[in-house]
Amino acid sequence: MKISHVLSTRQFADPSILQRLFELSLEMEKNVVNEKLFPVLNGKVMATLFYEPSTRTRFSFESAMNRLGGRVISTEAAGHFSSVTKGETLEDTIRIAGNYADVIVLRHFEKGSAEKAASVSRVPVINAGDGPGEHPTQALLDMYTIWREHGRMDKLNVILMGDLLYGRTVHSLIQLLSIFPQNTLTLVSPPTLKMPESYTQILREKNISYTETDTLPQDLSSVDVLYVTRVQKERFADENEYLRMKNCCNVDETILSRLAPNTIIMHPLPRVGEISPAIDADPRAAYFRQAGNGLFVRMALLELLFQKRSLEQKTLVMGEKGFW
Amino acid sequence: MKISHVLSTRQFADPSILQRLFELSLEMEKNVVNEKLFPVLNGKVMATLFYEPSTRTRFSFESAMNRLGGRVISTEAAGHFSSVTKGETLEDTIRIAGNYADVIVLRHFEKGSAEKAASVSRVPVINAGDGPGEHPTQALLDMYTIWREHGRMDKLNVILMGDLLYGRTVHSLIQLLSIFPQNTLTLVSPPTLKMPESYTQILREKNISYTETDTLPQDLSSVDVLYVTRVQKERFADENEYLRMKNCCNVDETILSRLAPNTIIMHPLPRVGEISPAIDADPRAAYFRQAGNGLFVRMALLELLFQKRSLEQKTLVMGEKGFW
Amino acid sequence: MKISHVLSTRQFADPSILQRLFELSLEMEKNVVNEKLFPVLNGKVMATLFYEPSTRTRFSFESAMNRLGGRVISTEAAGHFSSVTKGETLEDTIRIAGNYADVIVLRHFEKGSAEKAASVSRVPVINAGDGPGEHPTQALLDMYTIWREHGRMDKLNVILMGDLLYGRTVHSLIQLLSIFPQNTLTLVSPPTLKMPESYTQILREKNISYTETDTLPQDLSSVDVLYVTRVQKERFADENEYLRMKNCCNVDETILSRLAPNTIIMHPLPRVGEISPAIDADPRAAYFRQAGNGLFVRMALLELLFQKRSLEQKTLVMGEKGFW
Repeated sequence: MKISHVLSTRQFADPSILQRLFELSLEMEKNVVNEKLFPVLNGKVMATLFYEPSTRTRFSFESAMNRLGGRVISTEAAGHFSSVTKGETLEDTIRIAGNYADVIVLRHFEKGSAEKAASVSRVPVINAGDGPGEHPTQALLDMYTIWREHGRMDKLNVILMGDLLYGRTVHSLIQLLSIFPQNTLTLVSPPTLKMPESYTQILREKNISYTETDTLPQDLSSVDVLYVTRVQKERFADENEYLRMKNCCNVDETILSRLAPNTIIMHPLPRVGEISPAIDADPRAAYFRQAGNGLFVRMALLELLFQKRSLEQKTLVMGEKGFW
Repeated sequence: MKISHVLSTRQFADPSILQRLFELSLEMEKNVVNEKLFPVLNGKVMATLFYEPSTRTRFSFESAMNRLGGRVISTEAAGHFSSVTKGETLEDTIRIAGNYADVIVLRHFEKGSAEKAASVSRVPVINAGDGPGEHPTQALLDMYTIWREHGRMDKLNVILMGDLLYGRTVHSLIQLLSIFPQNTLTLVSPPTLKMPESYTQILREKNISYTETDTLPQDLSSVDVLYVTRVQKERFADENEYLRMKNCCNVDETILSRLAPNTIIMHPLPRVGEISPAIDADPRAAYFRQAGNGLFVRMALLELLFQKRSLEQKTLVMGEKGFW
Repeated sequence: MKISHVLSTRQFADPSILQRLFELSLEMEKNVVNEKLFPVLNGKVMATLFYEPSTRTRFSFESAMNRLGGRVISTEAAGHFSSVTKGETLEDTIRIAGNYADVIVLRHFEKGSAEKAASVSRVPVINAGDGPGEHPTQALLDMYTIWREHGRMDKLNVILMGDLLYGRTVHSLIQLLSIFPQNTLTLVSPPTLKMPESYTQILREKNISYTETDTLPQDLSSVDVLYVTRVQKERFADENEYLRMKNCCNVDETILSRLAPNTIIMHPLPRVGEISPAIDADPRAAYFRQAGNGLFVRMALLELLFQKRSLEQKTLVMGEKGFW
């Protein structure tokens, strides 16, 4: 299993790749929980280049690198990178950052920016979200959580609920769930926030059984995963419409009582009312464990990226062009 | 001596606790001064979550963690934490940060925020200032400075001077000085910035002798500590009133000449004219040493927080709920 | 070779000092390229205090420190340092930062700020740019690039082209090139952006042959170094004048075809059109290697600063004034 960059969920849409990645992630989890040092990236430097703030994602990557013994150089305001304000292209910024760091974690507001960065980078690039584009490590930690809590990625009864139109995480999850047999999906959303046709088409192509609805089904006793997303206020022109919509898709103690004991409730967080804090203490509330899993999956990806890189001795000759 | 969190000066208002903490702080000071490596927190990660900037405090904590071999993930603009702007509660932010870090240093503008954070956190929380609330590590470094320079915490003749109404540091210092016998306090402030009644009451309850005045006493020959605070312009409606007030409480060469050779002059810094730079070179000017002591006390606190945490082996079982 | 601070290019304007520094830089380059750990600054802490953003420079220093095993505490917005907004002087800020860090990297908008900082600092200060003043590490990495690629610093035919009036890097380069014999300079700039008299005077004093012109010479076959700088739009009152000027000094495939095989093209970056990306892949395009060289030179400087510092055992006595 060789990865040069982490750019898209599609790179990982393969059962055996996911299996290997998650086994390594579980190893990482064991090391962290047991406080076992695992400094395999000692001497390596990661640059986190964030053009829009996302402290959660940044912290998760930086903690992963540090727990592997690596070091981090970081900016949470790359847009104010003085060279950017002077008109430097992303390509030039990446080329230069690649002189100082051994891996670049890029968060950018523009779709396709991660691929553009990777195309010129001499070091691995990890896409930590490229605007309306992808956020592959989020997709992987979601899938890891399902595997970690249920022990399998097939034969699952999954409900995706909330904003299915703009919710980037549920789109990615559909791509990953559809590569395993016998999964069943229920897509619950307000009519104006339905799953885009391009994603339901994937389900049909892969023969994944699915239902679309605007209310949560009555019988929840066989649900394995209830994945809730945030309905963003800014999607609605009218405040009242927002409030009515939002309430379609919230989880509270009443809904909890209808779920089976082994159902897990997931949410990419932050939540703003979709899930009542009253259910946080219930073991089925998996969303904080889910966020924590981001650490292990990112540790695993970092290790994989560096395994690939060769360590052969290089000879420098004065007067010759430098290696960089 | 076990501490789970560092939230309030009150946790440390006990002579034997202070004594033990300061002995450990002195050990840390020796290690730093002699450039002795002491990487007891190797593999641990600290998150500094600052909702308002305070580079001095942040640097001090981050240096402490690094000098103990630990690692740091940091934000100096947690208010722009994208999830916060999306309406996430402090409790959720803390739960998630606690998945990535082994200890959280929180600076927040809201009184009580540190206790709120600690109530949901799976890792230790250190209060690095909660607005008008507390700043316990500042109080501890102030008291450490007195102990370090005088060798005792009792039988001290202490002057607190400046803004005693809003000055958070002098309030904390009163709490710590009053647990030791035979200390004497002189409270010097403009009439409108007097020490609040709730703090002078502590002094009366503990039988600490004190005087309140609006001018520095003539006889300064027996003063052990002259603690000066900044009089903030924004406390005054009228510029002239500010200037008149401010001048009541400044320290210059004339006042220095009236102090005994072993008096120490303290100030929480930053200063803006209260203390003339002309006296910086005098050995009695202790304010920069005082700031430096923050490093040693914070190192000691960090070590104590981690001593408490158990290191027992944990077994992960697939399909079971995760530990986090 | 002892250095206490890195403040000015003038400190290094000596052939034997440059030679030793660059040999050490080359050692650093070998270690990095061969992924050899070299943790000589283990246990040391660097503070990067940036009053204006420059992520490129900051990343380069922070990577250097990390690759030497040291640790970094960092602010990219020191102007928002709350104590600065409260009116603290730079001197006080430096004194306090020097309590937490073993070396301070200062970027400030005010000329002379680095010297001011060094005058009160108990730890080494590195000038990472003081506004219209100096940026000595940039000058050193430029000169290192010439030495690294040509194997010598004398007998060079060098063209400096672009904004020679405001371009800080070309001014520094003149100082360093003029200490070596038999270098020849061609200064190409729009008439309004000519090299200041104070710098051409250095060339005359050192008997360095030079020519001033507003167009690139026809015969480029013997050029060793073509150093291009950015012509900043904000220097011109009139947009059209800017466009006409800018075009005088750009490098594209046509110009490349006229250069000898061993010419190197340098640029301090960021570029905004002065150099066409179409020539990036040509081995003569040295500007990204040049940026990368900043890492090695900064590693060498850091090691030199710490070599100087003594490590003798110090005895702490309670009740005595602290060391700091």
